Amino acid sequence: MGHIIQEGDYVLLFLDNRRSYLVKVEKEKDFHTHKGFIHLGDLIGSEYGAKIKSSLNVEFVALKPTIRDYIFKMARRTQIIYPKDIALIIMFGNIQPGSRVVEAGTGTGALTTALAQYVKPSGKVYSYEIRPEFIQTATKNLEKAGVTEYVELKNKDVTQGIDEKNLDAVILDMATPWLVVPHAYAALKGSGIIVSFSPTIDQVVKTVEALKETGFTNIETVELLLRRMQIERGRTRPETLMTAHTGYTTFARKAFA
Amino acid sequence: MGHIIQEGDYVLLFLDNRRSYLVKVEKEKDFHTHKGFIHLGDLIGSEYGAKIKSSLNVEFVALKPTIRDYIFKMARRTQIIYPKDIALIIMFGNIQPGSRVVEAGTGTGALTTALAQYVKPSGKVYSYEIRPEFIQTATKNLEKAGVTEYVELKNKDVTQGIDEKNLDAVILDMATPWLVVPHAYAALKGSGIIVSFSPTIDQVVKTVEALKETGFTNIETVELLLRRMQIERGRTRPETLMTAHTGYTTFARKAFA
Amino acid sequence: MGHIIQEGDYVLLFLDNRRSYLVKVEKEKDFHTHKGFIHLGDLIGSEYGAKIKSSLNVEFVALKPTIRDYIFKMARRTQIIYPKDIALIIMFGNIQPGSRVVEAGTGTGALTTALAQYVKPSGKVYSYEIRPEFIQTATKNLEKAGVTEYVELKNKDVTQGIDEKNLDAVILDMATPWLVVPHAYAALKGSGIIVSFSPTIDQVVKTVEALKETGFTNIETVELLLRRMQIERGRTRPETLMTAHTGYTTFARKAFA
Amino acid sequence: MGHIIQEGDYVLLFLDNRRSYLVKVEKEKDFHTHKGFIHLGDLIGSEYGAKIKSSLNVEFVALKPTIRDYIFKMARRTQIIYPKDIALIIMFGNIQPGSRVVEAGTGTGALTTALAQYVKPSGKVYSYEIRPEFIQTATKNLEKAGVTEYVELKNKDVTQGIDEKNLDAVILDMATPWLVVPHAYAALKGSGIIVSFSPTIDQVVKTVEALKETGFTNIETVELLLRRMQIERGRTRPETLMTAHTGYTTFARKAFA
Repeated sequence: MGHIIQEGDYVLLFLDNRRSYLVKVEKEKDFHTHKGFIHLGDLIGSEYGAKIKSSLNVEFVALKPTIRDYIFKMARRTQIIYPKDIALIIMFGNIQPGSRVVEAGTGTGALTTALAQYVKPSGKVYSYEIRPEFIQTATKNLEKAGVTEYVELKNKDVTQGIDEKNLDAVILDMATPWLVVPHAYAALKGSGIIVSFSPTIDQVVKTVEALKETGFTNIETVELLLRRMQIERGRTRPETLMTAHTGYTTFARKAFA
Repeated sequence: MGHIIQEGDYVLLFLDNRRSYLVKVEKEKDFHTHKGFIHLGDLIGSEYGAKIKSSLNVEFVALKPTIRDYIFKMARRTQIIYPKDIALIIMFGNIQPGSRVVEAGTGTGALTTALAQYVKPSGKVYSYEIRPEFIQTATKNLEKAGVTEYVELKNKDVTQGIDEKNLDAVILDMATPWLVVPHAYAALKGSGIIVSFSPTIDQVVKTVEALKETGFTNIETVELLLRRMQIERGRTRPETLMTAHTGYTTFARKAFA
Repeated sequence: MGHIIQEGDYVLLFLDNRRSYLVKVEKEKDFHTHKGFIHLGDLIGSEYGAKIKSSLNVEFVALKPTIRDYIFKMARRTQIIYPKDIALIIMFGNIQPGSRVVEAGTGTGALTTALAQYVKPSGKVYSYEIRPEFIQTATKNLEKAGVTEYVELKNKDVTQGIDEKNLDAVILDMATPWLVVPHAYAALKGSGIIVSFSPTIDQVVKTVEALKETGFTNIETVELLLRRMQIERGRTRPETLMTAHTGYTTFARKAFA
Repeated sequence: MGHIIQEGDYVLLFLDNRRSYLVKVEKEKDFHTHKGFIHLGDLIGSEYGAKIKSSLNVEFVALKPTIRDYIFKMARRTQIIYPKDIALIIMFGNIQPGSRVVEAGTGTGALTTALAQYVKPSGKVYSYEIRPEFIQTATKNLEKAGVTEYVELKNKDVTQGIDEKNLDAVILDMATPWLVVPHAYAALKGSGIIVSFSPTIDQVVKTVEALKETGFTNIETVELLLRRMQIERGRTRPETLMTAHTGYTTFARKAFA
């Protein structure tokens, strides 16, 4: 966690709130933007937070990437889990340093990365993914974020069972979470937490029914709306457009029969 | 993190989603509820997640308290920061194992507890509070949650300056955050993050103005709405009542001039 | 629409935004509040908007009741349709002076009153209600609001059929709206509008399915959230508590096969 | 209100919830869409609600335009007042058949049209607009909606005063509503209602301060969020994107000093 930028480090080149770029610093490389190019080698030896000018004399800030930056930059069209939802999953899922967690599915590894950041240094994330191409993408993304050692990617179908036992949490971000509920029950410690994130009401209803049947308690479903504000004296107001729905998150805890 | 309940452990006695009790297990103690009393000593040796019956034969589940339970149970009337907001602060503030963080004010220690859980084992939270009575309350609450060693409580006025240097983050939950902005700038590492939580628009406007003047970049203000759902086939709907406003959270990062 | 208060008129005695009373002005009557009593006869001859003091010297304003006041004051516990939803139903349902509208069920007559206000002077509301006790309540409420002549209350089961033809709109606020969809189709003019208000998702799904099967077009379902603001320089913010869910409103228009 | 389509009538050619066209029926005219053209003359003599095929054999429904259609189709980029807000203004503003209402500013005439629809047949809307080009646009839009006779467009600056007296309501949708508050007080009947719609918090604060100083009572500010739902068994969920902010609406009533 040195705070001087070195060759091989990732840097977030920040222009404004809508435009920033996650790049790897290499001595001889130029990074091209529509505002001119930047000699990445010039950043080596600077402190994070330093400003750098492009060839067109436009100023960028070289920020140290956060978890949220890594997640955001690995998102794709198909990605529907947002940082706000990940934050809730982490806290309401009681994910902590040392937690042992199963996640399914891996997808691009966005949620996996966040889980890994919060279970380290002594915990582990076991992430199930049935589609091999996503395993590849996630592998690269975890390397970029530097959390590979806290994750075991498993190219397996989680609806067929969970290999691990005595888990602290099981986190589901997949199309048919209800099929995993009994496996999660078997794999969790007593009082362990299951979390399921789903875009549709129908998925939530099926999942909650499975949770009730399987012996989970303290079942809750919530939705989180994040509203951006435009703050400027004389012009303060919520922003016009909003991502109004990402998904519903359901939480429950394992009770013994 | 043993998973068998032992004398001195805290347990969440869970009745239903509206009624649960955070109690310390003592061999000879009874815990009285309106549903009868529970011999706490009977829990010793059980696994978390076990069920226990009260004297009136009502079943409770003995859950292992989560961060959120500790936070929720230490909340008071005056407490306006909610777990959903804390979750966002943790993730958008990039709080991680090893982070060095200043917080002000401590209040009852709810946010302090969460920060401590996420900076451990190698990080530290320096928490400023001007009112001595809150230092006492927070001390007890941190002990209960078992995070005392990751926190330094400071009975000092943060508007007079921050003692620490090279911080990863400064988190403000106080009436006049704008007065702390220049101190936070001085105390943060380059690219370090400031977070401010305020209930009113007026506080937000002043804080954002101070951030712009002081050299922060990537300034964002958001509001988070948490909506609870009632999930039951044939009766699924959002809950009628909602806590519609807790506060606005503002994030920014330190850039060098 | 005389603007001088006369014996027999209704007046809204307004104390503050949380406390106001809808009373009928009678010469010899006192109206008692926890802030003292008011001689209602003293209001006769005053203009609406006048202030009057109670026996305890507390000032009330004698406002002219609006549609919203009548609706609000006739609400009961069981009442789930709010003025914000009624406003949307009126406009999106294209209710206008002259409209001929069927409504079901009548309930306490809140929606009926609003519909009547907007179809007058030449339109008519035919309101179906199966429960005789509600017919009585609604009758009184319609009299109070002075819209009796624009309404025909029908103690009939609308799921058995609609007597009227060539309607401009059919408005449903009942437990099983999907059972009325074919009757509504038969009773509406071409391009006529059906509106259904339901608290649960399950009702909405069944209703939308019935609408699609029956030949309605331009089917839309929306939810309306009304957020109250506390406006005060230095303390401006949304209010803490909010009625977060009243119901979903579905609109569709009749197309010929 | 004949229900057979005639030459000169307006028709809403409806394709789906995102694509519909407001057209005037002329015997010899073709209306061209990306789905082929439609001989408008073929609609003459049909009932509203009839289907018609384009030259590419794509089916449209010929709906009778509603108030909302007229409003929506006259909207422009600069237009920020939405039907949901107009609906609230109408009802909470107690606009009724017979109401005498001042509006400012006219803009494209969207709100004017709605007000006219609800004050007719015996009421009147006096609409102030300082920009002559908007007077022209509004004139055309009012003609299209057939409400010209209920409106008087005035090319005057409402901040200089209101000519009318004894008004039921004053409706403000302009940049500096607080400048009109004293004029509105003078022009309103006792108990008359002022409504102000503004996008920014700063405008609302100034307006509420002016209302308090001028002797208005029952001052309330609300914000309305309209959330569209995707209703389909197995895929039911709120829509992803939402217009999250249009503006705040403030209501108050005139009390005598």
